[in-house]
Amino acid sequence: MSLIRDNPVAMYLQIADRLRREVAEGTFEPSGRLPSESQIMERFNVSRVTVRLALDQLDKDGLIERRKGKGTFVAGKQVRHQIDTLRSFHESLKVQGFDATMRIVELTAIETPSAFVSLFGAKCALLERLHLVDDEPIAMGRSFLPAVMSELDLETVEQRPTYALLRDKAGADIASADIAIGARAVPSRISSLIGAATDAVLLVLERTSYFDHGACAEWSEFFIRPERYKFVLGSRMSA
Amino acid sequence: MSLIRDNPVAMYLQIADRLRREVAEGTFEPSGRLPSESQIMERFNVSRVTVRLALDQLDKDGLIERRKGKGTFVAGKQVRHQIDTLRSFHESLKVQGFDATMRIVELTAIETPSAFVSLFGAKCALLERLHLVDDEPIAMGRSFLPAVMSELDLETVEQRPTYALLRDKAGADIASADIAIGARAVPSRISSLIGAATDAVLLVLERTSYFDHGACAEWSEFFIRPERYKFVLGSRMSA
Repeated sequence: MSLIRDNPVAMYLQIADRLRREVAEGTFEPSGRLPSESQIMERFNVSRVTVRLALDQLDKDGLIERRKGKGTFVAGKQVRHQIDTLRSFHESLKVQGFDATMRIVELTAIETPSAFVSLFGAKCALLERLHLVDDEPIAMGRSFLPAVMSELDLETVEQRPTYALLRDKAGADIASADIAIGARAVPSRISSLIGAATDAVLLVLERTSYFDHGACAEWSEFFIRPERYKFVLGSRMSA
Repeated sequence: MSLIRDNPVAMYLQIADRLRREVAEGTFEPSGRLPSESQIMERFNVSRVTVRLALDQLDKDGLIERRKGKGTFVAGKQVRHQIDTLRSFHESLKVQGFDATMRIVELTAIETPSAFVSLFGAKCALLERLHLVDDEPIAMGRSFLPAVMSELDLETVEQRPTYALLRDKAGADIASADIAIGARAVPSRISSLIGAATDAVLLVLERTSYFDHGACAEWSEFFIRPERYKFVLGSRMSA
């Protein structure tokens, strides 16, 4: 064992980091069950208080769940959303093997907000969908789309990712997108829809997508519960 | 004006979105001053309550500041951190024209945490630095680096971005990096160092960088105040 006892990073944080890494590496699969507090005390040669602080930290990060009388478990899988690949939000969950579904909150034709008139003309479609993993809401997407999209039937819209819908209905492929990722508190309507606390700070993905003929295809915001969600970017970056 | 009065998105949110966009587009530069509440009421033909709700939303997002007796101002510039370009964190602030500085919290040789032994050997360097913009902390970076890096003098480490330090001292260029972006609460030691509320949810960037000869150069985490920070990725994505 090589915890660093004179390390300025407190012991419990080192233990939390170690366990976090092991969770990520799948050390506790397939049961998902972590060792008991006593086992962790023994392994790291620390007090029960230190172990509990470490587990509290992981609990706060949403990485583990303590089940009364049953022990401590890995809290669902971590979503790793690859952002250097052009995919609908729903698709990015499916390709990771998640049981991902969608539920429509709103699909309606609206007068285009002025900021988007140059993109979509006087009318556009507003689409709001919940994204669920294992039937638990993980995000809400809100998209402004070409007006024709509001004519789609709800069943299709609940099944098909945005880019597929655009291909079906607008007859063109998505060729590129600009994205921005931040974190902020969102209106309580949204936090309550995805089961987050009021005033919870959520991950927010903004996306503008373009057809291969150059026209803007959609402008979307995704409000995401951050507990088990990461955006990842591979080594393709170059200097 | 084309606010949508039967839009399911509440009026105040539409107004907040509009103003947010105008802030981003620089409409209120160079003074940074927004129109008065009365002017906004008149412009959108809404009540003072609606205007205040919209401004509250922008305030909560950290985009505006209300100064007593002086009016409402754009709250500093938005950082747009380009993540498809290989750059040190400090460099990514500098290239946007920010007055970015660093302050060392910790630079020390430590026994390598076991997760990193395969990367750095038995000893490594731990570097913690505050990143400031206009003398205000915006982030803290925590890096594990090759042991030789702990021999650097503090003055140099406070001036030079990580990749430059690695080039200087390890004699090799950084060729690639993997990154992950999430949001989570961090230990109070870190939130207090960057002036965030205890238990505040921060943006977290994890980065693993590699030398051109393939060896791992560093593993870092950056804990970032999210109010005016976005990671952006251009249209280089391909299907």
